[in-house]
Amino acid sequence: MTTAHPFGGRRLPVAVLGATGTVGQLFIRLLADHPWFRVTTVAASERSAGRPFAEAATWHEGTIPADVAPLVVKRCDPAEVTERVVFSALDSAAALAVEPEFARAGAVVLSNPNCSTINIVMAIAPLHRAFGLRKLFAVTMQAISGAGYPGVASLDILGNVIPFIGDEEPKVETEPQKLLGDFDGERVRMAPFVTSAQTNRVAVRHGHTACLSMAFERHPHEDEALAVLRDWPGGIAHLGLPTAPPTPLVVHEAENRPQPIKDVDRDAGMSVHVGRVRPDPLFDLRLVCMGHNVMRGAAGASVLNAELMAVRGLLAGA
Amino acid sequence: MTTAHPFGGRRLPVAVLGATGTVGQLFIRLLADHPWFRVTTVAASERSAGRPFAEAATWHEGTIPADVAPLVVKRCDPAEVTERVVFSALDSAAALAVEPEFARAGAVVLSNPNCSTINIVMAIAPLHRAFGLRKLFAVTMQAISGAGYPGVASLDILGNVIPFIGDEEPKVETEPQKLLGDFDGERVRMAPFVTSAQTNRVAVRHGHTACLSMAFERHPHEDEALAVLRDWPGGIAHLGLPTAPPTPLVVHEAENRPQPIKDVDRDAGMSVHVGRVRPDPLFDLRLVCMGHNVMRGAAGASVLNAELMAVRGLLAGA
Amino acid sequence: MTTAHPFGGRRLPVAVLGATGTVGQLFIRLLADHPWFRVTTVAASERSAGRPFAEAATWHEGTIPADVAPLVVKRCDPAEVTERVVFSALDSAAALAVEPEFARAGAVVLSNPNCSTINIVMAIAPLHRAFGLRKLFAVTMQAISGAGYPGVASLDILGNVIPFIGDEEPKVETEPQKLLGDFDGERVRMAPFVTSAQTNRVAVRHGHTACLSMAFERHPHEDEALAVLRDWPGGIAHLGLPTAPPTPLVVHEAENRPQPIKDVDRDAGMSVHVGRVRPDPLFDLRLVCMGHNVMRGAAGASVLNAELMAVRGLLAGA
Amino acid sequence: MTTAHPFGGRRLPVAVLGATGTVGQLFIRLLADHPWFRVTTVAASERSAGRPFAEAATWHEGTIPADVAPLVVKRCDPAEVTERVVFSALDSAAALAVEPEFARAGAVVLSNPNCSTINIVMAIAPLHRAFGLRKLFAVTMQAISGAGYPGVASLDILGNVIPFIGDEEPKVETEPQKLLGDFDGERVRMAPFVTSAQTNRVAVRHGHTACLSMAFERHPHEDEALAVLRDWPGGIAHLGLPTAPPTPLVVHEAENRPQPIKDVDRDAGMSVHVGRVRPDPLFDLRLVCMGHNVMRGAAGASVLNAELMAVRGLLAGA
Repeated sequence: MTTAHPFGGRRLPVAVLGATGTVGQLFIRLLADHPWFRVTTVAASERSAGRPFAEAATWHEGTIPADVAPLVVKRCDPAEVTERVVFSALDSAAALAVEPEFARAGAVVLSNPNCSTINIVMAIAPLHRAFGLRKLFAVTMQAISGAGYPGVASLDILGNVIPFIGDEEPKVETEPQKLLGDFDGERVRMAPFVTSAQTNRVAVRHGHTACLSMAFERHPHEDEALAVLRDWPGGIAHLGLPTAPPTPLVVHEAENRPQPIKDVDRDAGMSVHVGRVRPDPLFDLRLVCMGHNVMRGAAGASVLNAELMAVRGLLAGA
Repeated sequence: MTTAHPFGGRRLPVAVLGATGTVGQLFIRLLADHPWFRVTTVAASERSAGRPFAEAATWHEGTIPADVAPLVVKRCDPAEVTERVVFSALDSAAALAVEPEFARAGAVVLSNPNCSTINIVMAIAPLHRAFGLRKLFAVTMQAISGAGYPGVASLDILGNVIPFIGDEEPKVETEPQKLLGDFDGERVRMAPFVTSAQTNRVAVRHGHTACLSMAFERHPHEDEALAVLRDWPGGIAHLGLPTAPPTPLVVHEAENRPQPIKDVDRDAGMSVHVGRVRPDPLFDLRLVCMGHNVMRGAAGASVLNAELMAVRGLLAGA
Repeated sequence: MTTAHPFGGRRLPVAVLGATGTVGQLFIRLLADHPWFRVTTVAASERSAGRPFAEAATWHEGTIPADVAPLVVKRCDPAEVTERVVFSALDSAAALAVEPEFARAGAVVLSNPNCSTINIVMAIAPLHRAFGLRKLFAVTMQAISGAGYPGVASLDILGNVIPFIGDEEPKVETEPQKLLGDFDGERVRMAPFVTSAQTNRVAVRHGHTACLSMAFERHPHEDEALAVLRDWPGGIAHLGLPTAPPTPLVVHEAENRPQPIKDVDRDAGMSVHVGRVRPDPLFDLRLVCMGHNVMRGAAGASVLNAELMAVRGLLAGA
Repeated sequence: MTTAHPFGGRRLPVAVLGATGTVGQLFIRLLADHPWFRVTTVAASERSAGRPFAEAATWHEGTIPADVAPLVVKRCDPAEVTERVVFSALDSAAALAVEPEFARAGAVVLSNPNCSTINIVMAIAPLHRAFGLRKLFAVTMQAISGAGYPGVASLDILGNVIPFIGDEEPKVETEPQKLLGDFDGERVRMAPFVTSAQTNRVAVRHGHTACLSMAFERHPHEDEALAVLRDWPGGIAHLGLPTAPPTPLVVHEAENRPQPIKDVDRDAGMSVHVGRVRPDPLFDLRLVCMGHNVMRGAAGASVLNAELMAVRGLLAGA
């Protein structure tokens, strides 16, 4: 099922901020053939501004879409970028300064939450809804693409594990409570669980894996948990959004899955994979989850959010 | 300080069971220049028996010690192997059948505990002694050498994480309680804590890393824990055993250590490395530990045990 | 352009020999949605025979096509396998024994040439046709998937180069002359050039890279060579075969391409990539070529061959 | 055999330029326990100057030698650095500007030649001396440490081959002729052979591998070549220099050696490894050589050169 075209067949003009970086390039690829959106402006740092995109960007995969290649790169300034829908691929520091300016200027800014958090939240959301999560241990093994480009030096990670990722653990310890919280129209009431996170970098290209142990208010049996995970439709499956995967949560039965190499590219990287659901000697349950950090965990999630806003009429004035 | 020679200058003849495999070869290398022991018999499977060792074994690193190369491989049978000190590099199945036969025949059999367990136990032992461990979450990222040779297929692990290692989690969930338990002369009283383990295989050659979260009876402050870890002499430091590392537990201050690539070879792989000691939002403390799975976690540990038995006079009749 | 359906809309029943292995599984995936062929029999070793395919095979990527999963595995015997078109994924030893039996029984057997050779031949074919190749130095860096599964042990290749692949260099030194030779209806007259090959295994999943240096009869200038490579249509582009890539030879301008990670999956792995075309201080030209060893170099090539035979009416009686 | 101490027991004070980088740090480690030299000054860029070394440098392996840690970093200026023996770890650009200044100020500057070239020259030197090299094809597979730190991005090389290294091929095509040339007291007469080089980056930490094909004036048989390589004493073996390996050229018989993982650390990385010596269908001989690019190929070679100059009395005035 595919939903009706929210803009009556016309592709809505959108801008990409931070367009020359890896996430920016991914936005451009994801939107190249998008039925609803069309990239009409690319913006980046001063260094790139004023040059044709094809010249300013070191394009990483395949070839630059023909209609984006000749665009002249603009500065990340609402005075220059007039689209009302803006995908941001800026890093935290730049985002903090620039995104509020666009919001104040009336733009809808679609930005990425933490890529580890998204995948974990996808896996625990149905369990939390059903059983009331109270305690969460999460140990992650994160892909190098999560650090951008050039990112992690090969001498640091080839044949190695780095048991630390700067600023990552605080995010994984606070964002899930927010994403699974309640919005009362004014503010978010945090979901009432506590998270302990340990984050590691491993020699994987794409795909963040997490080992989770969870204590719930209503102590579910392993089979109940499996049933909930398998039957979870996601909240938006009925909408037929172009970027939505057929099964947002793929539950694996093989004892050695999910694995980045074997599972990360399924459904264009938009599914989250769960496996090894089993009882925990200390808490109620444990499981392994894995998702594509740059697709489901970043650019793909933003595009999906924009699609959801579109069918809900929230981009109408845009 | 080095202890007096326990055998009056003479090197004690020892045998290696499973001598053609990787751990067997490591025993031979470790004992090649050992001041107290000398390999006089190599034993292996039927397939290798009767052939000169240099021909029966595919030697992996460097060159075969000159006095071992010409030895004719014997079968793993107490009738053929008459040394009274026997290092076993047999896998679990063969060990279960063969090792008791040697024990019954009067031999001292030195065998390997689980390689992940040893490293974790080294890290938690001083904390347990000081504060009384009650709950332990352990998520491991284990090296490919832990699976022997040929072991893990390269297609399975290159650029990947495998969130499962056969039979490993039950071992890590039961052996620490035993190793830290009390021996009353007859049996071991298990240490009173519960362990939840999730074990993963990663693309690392040597060095098992573990992320631990721990709850203690006497809820230590992070600084108390650090002091205990830093000051821990190990139980055998004063004995000056040849294979003992100068510091059995190396405590790292850098927030991104320990790392297999940077730390695993220190002190010939006999130290265990601890880092990121910090409070845990759910339990009392968390930390990262890492140790060499084939040295400290296997062959090196057996040789050290033999040295300890030697200075305690337990190999006297051997 | 797509050609007319050679079998009038009906999908021709075909068998896969060695169906449980990695190349066999790839055949099954490639033929799952093929417009002209349909897998109706899977055959494998005695060990698998008699069991449902889904149970006999350890399926590696995604899920088993629904119509193949329940097929009962047969033995590789023309008495049991009655399809007239047979895709063989047998290794050399089994192939030598089994394939002639099928041929004698009247089957058309499609089998894989050497995977390194195919990619190199694709790159040198247009140059040989235009300028007359006389001498070829080829040094390869080959992917682990070229060795099948389990194939290369991870301890052997992680962070390593193995400067030797069993039986590979003789193939690369003799097969190109045959593939580029003339068939006079009875036998192949070898192309008159001499090849020196050195083959290496590297830590790459898919994609064999080769550095070539070439001396030609008509000493082409670099620009002539580039023009010939860029303009090369391939011999079958006009036929619109389902598995044929849009551009059989992709010529790269960036000085650091082709690369396995960036280029191997283009056009479903059916293109061969050429880059760094430049003069050689000793011979006339050198270049780097890279292609997907299991697609263009193995299963994909066989399917393409079958398609070519189909449109030429060679499978009519099948 | 060890030579007499060239400085009468006193360790000569030396400086390290570019001391904070990876090669600089390696110099400091190599010289930490050197019997003849002692690092008394560390110099680096403006950014580091004026700070204690332990604070200015991100130390990569093990711990900073105790006598170097507190040294205040100086600028790379002969006015500040007064030692007469100077080890340079500067990159090409800085070296070009700074090293001549030191030379003019009377210092002996020890600097690194190209790391690929050294290993290849070690392998071909005895063959050239014996048979007269005329043509050399060299295809390299080079380690990531050859690019320094941070150097190669992990996203660029994990599971990949990059068939290009900036400025590398011209060096490998010109430096061997110079290193094997004759010095007539005034200038170097290039050795009369032509080299064609193709250089690749692979996912290896340390150890540059090269596949060589060689044509000689006196067309040696494979056995003659092997004899020459095996018997080659090196030019300085009799001097007993502290950093000289026992066997400068290690000839391997196993058909799959040398390999970086298995051979690169032998003799502290100062040996060069040769294997697969065999006839070539186009030229006379081919072989595979491999050596440690930062030890034999860089810092270790400089220290060895300094030792040679010391015993020849060339550092006497220093």
